[in-house]
Amino acid sequence: MNFDYSPKVQEMQARLLAFFDAHIYPNEARFHEEVEANRRNGNAWVPTTVIEELKPLARKAGLWNLFLPKSSRAPEGLSNLEYAPLCEIMGRVTWAAEVFNCSAPDTGNMETIERYGSEAQKTEWLEPLLRGDFRSAFLMTEPAVASSDATNIECRIERVGDEYVINGTKWWSSGAGDPRCAIYVVMGKTNPEAGRHEQQSMVLVPANTPGVRVIRPLTVYGYDDAPHGHMEVELKNVRVPVGNILLGEGRGFEIAQGRLGPGRIHHCMRSIGAAERALELMCERAIARTAFGKTLAQQTVTQERIAEARCMIEQARLLTLKAAYMMDTVGNKVAKAEIAMIKIVAPNMALQVIDWAVQVFGGMGVSGDTPLAIMWAHQRTLRLADGPDEVHRNSLAKLELAKHMRLPGGEVRMPITRGS
Amino acid sequence: MNFDYSPKVQEMQARLLAFFDAHIYPNEARFHEEVEANRRNGNAWVPTTVIEELKPLARKAGLWNLFLPKSSRAPEGLSNLEYAPLCEIMGRVTWAAEVFNCSAPDTGNMETIERYGSEAQKTEWLEPLLRGDFRSAFLMTEPAVASSDATNIECRIERVGDEYVINGTKWWSSGAGDPRCAIYVVMGKTNPEAGRHEQQSMVLVPANTPGVRVIRPLTVYGYDDAPHGHMEVELKNVRVPVGNILLGEGRGFEIAQGRLGPGRIHHCMRSIGAAERALELMCERAIARTAFGKTLAQQTVTQERIAEARCMIEQARLLTLKAAYMMDTVGNKVAKAEIAMIKIVAPNMALQVIDWAVQVFGGMGVSGDTPLAIMWAHQRTLRLADGPDEVHRNSLAKLELAKHMRLPGGEVRMPITRGS
Amino acid sequence: MNFDYSPKVQEMQARLLAFFDAHIYPNEARFHEEVEANRRNGNAWVPTTVIEELKPLARKAGLWNLFLPKSSRAPEGLSNLEYAPLCEIMGRVTWAAEVFNCSAPDTGNMETIERYGSEAQKTEWLEPLLRGDFRSAFLMTEPAVASSDATNIECRIERVGDEYVINGTKWWSSGAGDPRCAIYVVMGKTNPEAGRHEQQSMVLVPANTPGVRVIRPLTVYGYDDAPHGHMEVELKNVRVPVGNILLGEGRGFEIAQGRLGPGRIHHCMRSIGAAERALELMCERAIARTAFGKTLAQQTVTQERIAEARCMIEQARLLTLKAAYMMDTVGNKVAKAEIAMIKIVAPNMALQVIDWAVQVFGGMGVSGDTPLAIMWAHQRTLRLADGPDEVHRNSLAKLELAKHMRLPGGEVRMPITRGS
Amino acid sequence: MNFDYSPKVQEMQARLLAFFDAHIYPNEARFHEEVEANRRNGNAWVPTTVIEELKPLARKAGLWNLFLPKSSRAPEGLSNLEYAPLCEIMGRVTWAAEVFNCSAPDTGNMETIERYGSEAQKTEWLEPLLRGDFRSAFLMTEPAVASSDATNIECRIERVGDEYVINGTKWWSSGAGDPRCAIYVVMGKTNPEAGRHEQQSMVLVPANTPGVRVIRPLTVYGYDDAPHGHMEVELKNVRVPVGNILLGEGRGFEIAQGRLGPGRIHHCMRSIGAAERALELMCERAIARTAFGKTLAQQTVTQERIAEARCMIEQARLLTLKAAYMMDTVGNKVAKAEIAMIKIVAPNMALQVIDWAVQVFGGMGVSGDTPLAIMWAHQRTLRLADGPDEVHRNSLAKLELAKHMRLPGGEVRMPITRGS
Repeated sequence: MNFDYSPKVQEMQARLLAFFDAHIYPNEARFHEEVEANRRNGNAWVPTTVIEELKPLARKAGLWNLFLPKSSRAPEGLSNLEYAPLCEIMGRVTWAAEVFNCSAPDTGNMETIERYGSEAQKTEWLEPLLRGDFRSAFLMTEPAVASSDATNIECRIERVGDEYVINGTKWWSSGAGDPRCAIYVVMGKTNPEAGRHEQQSMVLVPANTPGVRVIRPLTVYGYDDAPHGHMEVELKNVRVPVGNILLGEGRGFEIAQGRLGPGRIHHCMRSIGAAERALELMCERAIARTAFGKTLAQQTVTQERIAEARCMIEQARLLTLKAAYMMDTVGNKVAKAEIAMIKIVAPNMALQVIDWAVQVFGGMGVSGDTPLAIMWAHQRTLRLADGPDEVHRNSLAKLELAKHMRLPGGEVRMPITRGS
Repeated sequence: MNFDYSPKVQEMQARLLAFFDAHIYPNEARFHEEVEANRRNGNAWVPTTVIEELKPLARKAGLWNLFLPKSSRAPEGLSNLEYAPLCEIMGRVTWAAEVFNCSAPDTGNMETIERYGSEAQKTEWLEPLLRGDFRSAFLMTEPAVASSDATNIECRIERVGDEYVINGTKWWSSGAGDPRCAIYVVMGKTNPEAGRHEQQSMVLVPANTPGVRVIRPLTVYGYDDAPHGHMEVELKNVRVPVGNILLGEGRGFEIAQGRLGPGRIHHCMRSIGAAERALELMCERAIARTAFGKTLAQQTVTQERIAEARCMIEQARLLTLKAAYMMDTVGNKVAKAEIAMIKIVAPNMALQVIDWAVQVFGGMGVSGDTPLAIMWAHQRTLRLADGPDEVHRNSLAKLELAKHMRLPGGEVRMPITRGS
Repeated sequence: MNFDYSPKVQEMQARLLAFFDAHIYPNEARFHEEVEANRRNGNAWVPTTVIEELKPLARKAGLWNLFLPKSSRAPEGLSNLEYAPLCEIMGRVTWAAEVFNCSAPDTGNMETIERYGSEAQKTEWLEPLLRGDFRSAFLMTEPAVASSDATNIECRIERVGDEYVINGTKWWSSGAGDPRCAIYVVMGKTNPEAGRHEQQSMVLVPANTPGVRVIRPLTVYGYDDAPHGHMEVELKNVRVPVGNILLGEGRGFEIAQGRLGPGRIHHCMRSIGAAERALELMCERAIARTAFGKTLAQQTVTQERIAEARCMIEQARLLTLKAAYMMDTVGNKVAKAEIAMIKIVAPNMALQVIDWAVQVFGGMGVSGDTPLAIMWAHQRTLRLADGPDEVHRNSLAKLELAKHMRLPGGEVRMPITRGS
Repeated sequence: MNFDYSPKVQEMQARLLAFFDAHIYPNEARFHEEVEANRRNGNAWVPTTVIEELKPLARKAGLWNLFLPKSSRAPEGLSNLEYAPLCEIMGRVTWAAEVFNCSAPDTGNMETIERYGSEAQKTEWLEPLLRGDFRSAFLMTEPAVASSDATNIECRIERVGDEYVINGTKWWSSGAGDPRCAIYVVMGKTNPEAGRHEQQSMVLVPANTPGVRVIRPLTVYGYDDAPHGHMEVELKNVRVPVGNILLGEGRGFEIAQGRLGPGRIHHCMRSIGAAERALELMCERAIARTAFGKTLAQQTVTQERIAEARCMIEQARLLTLKAAYMMDTVGNKVAKAEIAMIKIVAPNMALQVIDWAVQVFGGMGVSGDTPLAIMWAHQRTLRLADGPDEVHRNSLAKLELAKHMRLPGGEVRMPITRGS
């Protein structure tokens, strides 16, 4: 057992932090101003020049596709445990990950194609994604049903000759707002009569296929998150070649499970980065702000929250790093409890820390003058994305209860009597 | 970074767990019955035969003085990181640690004498403590003042010739109820005019010194914790040779700080062990109990709590192990934030988990028929022992705030405007 | 709508508070010392002289049987709304209610016999109870099953000729420890084959009937609550005349429901009284105690808790008074949601307030030197007595959900789009 | 004591609810669509036709200026206790209050002028406000300082001849975005050397006075709350006649205190209305949504939250009604503790209830497809508006502590020993 980051990780952290100091933080206001200007000019759904300018710098600094696990394509690829602390840093600024080609859902889609795609699919879609030439979306969640239960999914993928015909409505298709979004990974049912977990399949659907219609952007507490966005998308008699299926018919659930692990680590580490940033802002503000003759930092009620925030962040980080370690060493099946735990813990922790920070900032905290409000809104979605907390808590509890199922009748083994 | 216990630790865990299965759990009810029988017979303040019978077995099994750090006296001594997981196991049964000569406050007192005592003091007091020949108490807290602020301490230690004359009243002197308790480590002021942290000294006071009077046992939510107990002790013109001072006059605060680290790890790991036990009992009960046509385990409200308990325990354990690791590698000064964090986190976590378990047990949970009620009462004291949570949160917050003091005016560095 | 206590209530509050100042508070330590002396002398299960001395004074002061609702027996009886604020005052000292013949379970048993008993039963049992000549217990909960679900009850009441033969084991029979406890109200099943709520019956069983055996006292955390106590009681072929049945066979559930309302008000108001007392002690201590150069009262963290405590107490009181008002005006069937709410709210509130107070007292708070620890332990049982919180929350939720069942498909009626 | 709404109130509730059914709910989507269309067309800062169409209907239905307390101007005016339940209903839809000319900050401004204004001021500003001819803003909070401490205020109001010259920057000037906003009530300092609470004055500043500049709208999370809005406003050498002062120089703090009470009731009752709406939506959704074979309403975890929500709402409502009652009967000085309590309790309660509802809705809950997200954002500001929770908790604690200051040394009066 050892709690130090490896020298390699420490070096990369230093490099990434330096990049943030040089290029990300100084452009933080500019990003939002640019999007706002685009919006005022009638179309916020265009890529920002700021991110496009920064991408070549990141690539040059060797900070490109960091998420990519070691493989033939990435002989220098990082392990989950190595990438996690870098991902945390990226979480400090909501839009930063894209600069390093490390933003969701592209990373998950790239991993999916890398892991489950055919060579033809990799050449056509993975390569340009890795180069950052275009972007992608993941069409899973549906407005009409509780999609955390995959058997509820209504989108149909029917084979007709050499094509799949797809019909369904999806929403929360993040990234589909970006005009560069070229490819969708679509989850639907090829066989509703099959076993619970063999009904689903995933197919690759180019965004410009006839029948695809982006209905509208959804908002998250008033934010449209342009130009990335979260879209409602209609698929009406959309036809793709049968070669566009991933892995094979009925394997959609299996792929969905397989892609979960690393994505969870990424999301959770970014949540931790957001929480660290919020705590930092909270401390700075508490030091600078005076009310009733004392700085907020001198009030024990502020101190209590700062201390609790620090305790919560440290614990969530260690748990996420352990989950990453287990994924690297024993795989995400064995690590499933830990992967469920971080999904529950990290966003809830970040929401609490950010909310305390908002309170210290007063009215400024709920406004656009700090990153806190948008961070909070983003974290709030993570209690729902990939299934609500409740679903993960139930899964985790069942794993825990299963340890005790073999005991005779749940007998309490060592009853004691009254006494000291 | 590596999250696996070393093979050495795993082997010791297995050995200790086997000892629990063979000797501790089967005697759990017997311990409480024996104390209760002693109480009914008019004196609960006598050592139990059960613990005395088990001690030689523990020694024979190589499970004796496990807490002892590597030193000339203990060339095979364990590091904090190695001992921590063993300490967790001991926490599963409230009285178990003594069987292994690993119970508070003896461990802290032994470490203190080992680290700060003269050779004569070691021969006279440390050796028999290590053999388990007698026991010890730590007289720090005072009823009249908030003792978490060491400058409040009123107990006087005055040099008169070759003796120190001690006057004061202490309470929460745990272990002083045991008739075998032979030696007290007493904190008092030798020089109330000195600097804040140079006023205090520690002296060794044999329990049978004239002027020492055990006034009464205190209770913890109705428990007297006999035969160990928590005593109020009067020191009235108690005289000891000047050679009984530890380290020197005015060094009491320094010693108090030095002894804190390992004790915190021990307490916190035992809290984690108690929480694990509670979760285990909770699961077993939830599986076995049916109400309104379903087992409690099938109710999502139970599942939520089991899942939350698992998340909380895992996080607290990782944080405590990290603190132990830091104490081993960078020392307890550098680890002071982590040591404060675990002091806050572990008992609060354990209290919540135990309370959820109590709720699943219904009336049985608050009774003496499970270990839950006494565990809860014990954990509740740990939010106060060594200073209340609030004091530690304030210290931790100050460490956090100090990181930001050099920034110009606590300025929020990257204000952003409205936008995505 | 009017939030003032009536002049009559205000006068009685003043009278009762004066009695507390004159007779209860000055005897608070004495009560515990007397019980402790009895325990040391080998038998804590004897009535205290302090309570026996105070009873005639209470009766003389017109503060006797205040709980008794207006009826032929009590033409001056108080309404629930009138009695509630008096009950709150009694809750300030754990043992005070008995002085006024207002303690559970006697009050519930007296109401039950008053409401459902025959004239013969009233003469034999109700009259002496009203005079305080002896005491009573309620034997409902069973160790083997989740008794909050009345269909789980296993105690059998079988008619054999002119007698009922009773077999079963009960526990948490509060008051059965008192040697004056002469009569038990026993819940059991006369017909396990009947409908869910027609299986149960209640019979009156004199405590000295052959076959009745008090097995042991249970503890609540470390308290045995002598001389009142909470007993485990075995009923083995216990025979009582058929005339001892209350209301008739199969009416036990109906009686259990009927007795619930007023008892809930009493318990909740006493919880509120306990919380008020705790807040009072907390404030006094916070003012008196200094650490690190400031009183605890000057720390904003203490202030936050005092403020939250005040908010919680006020809200719980208003809700309980409203429930009492509704019971008086529209009856406990219509008030069932409110009665469930206070059962959930009041003990949880009191536990939180008391725990904050404990924290302000430090080690003294968990000891027997303040009433806080025993108050906490008592309140903790109230989250379980009469069914755990969870059962009441489920009932309450079902009432809430039922309001919406008739809406078509739970449709959200007014979807809105993005915008302000 | 009586918990029933008066017949008059019940009749008005029925009338207002009927208006909501007929005119508000059916226009809920339309309002947001209209604002969004205005935004797309380049200017969201224009009044909506929907509200303008509804105002005459409200007036005709006798639902106009309901907030107005009984006075010569409003002989039929409602008491706080009578208006509160109507205000609750208005809180069910974020934009509804304006339809009845009952929206903040106009109501507070009208009350202020009614109470503290000269006859000339009333004629010029109050009359048209009461008719709804134009709107108003309250310029109190400043970006540079913690404005909850009125001594921090930096805005200067200097008398030069017959004019006041005003310089300062204000923000969170709600309603100043509306082009009809004609008059500002501005808080500033006329004499920074005076006593803490005599430095401030309030003046009436017409919005079109030279030197007034609306700098920008602030956002609340991602909402700009157009067309109402929350503005940052610069006042640069703004000149108004000395007759525009309210009450007199140095009376600003007094006015600020005086206007607080009723506004608090309004805000809190609207929070309660929002929470009721959220609970309603939550129940409907929980009934309609199925996951893993059960509706969400059948899960005990959902039931727990519904029950807790109901308990929290009922308690907050009773406390707010009691505060209103006290304001009517004993005035807002005596009611200051209650007014502080509701300010703390109501928004926190509403935030929790709304957040639970969001969780039941899944992704839909954070979007614009239900009113939940915007309600949450709005409630979040209420933990900061009129001073953050922390300031009010401190005030409330000080009132509580003051009750105990006269006791000798905060002595715990009745120490008890160990025992039952």
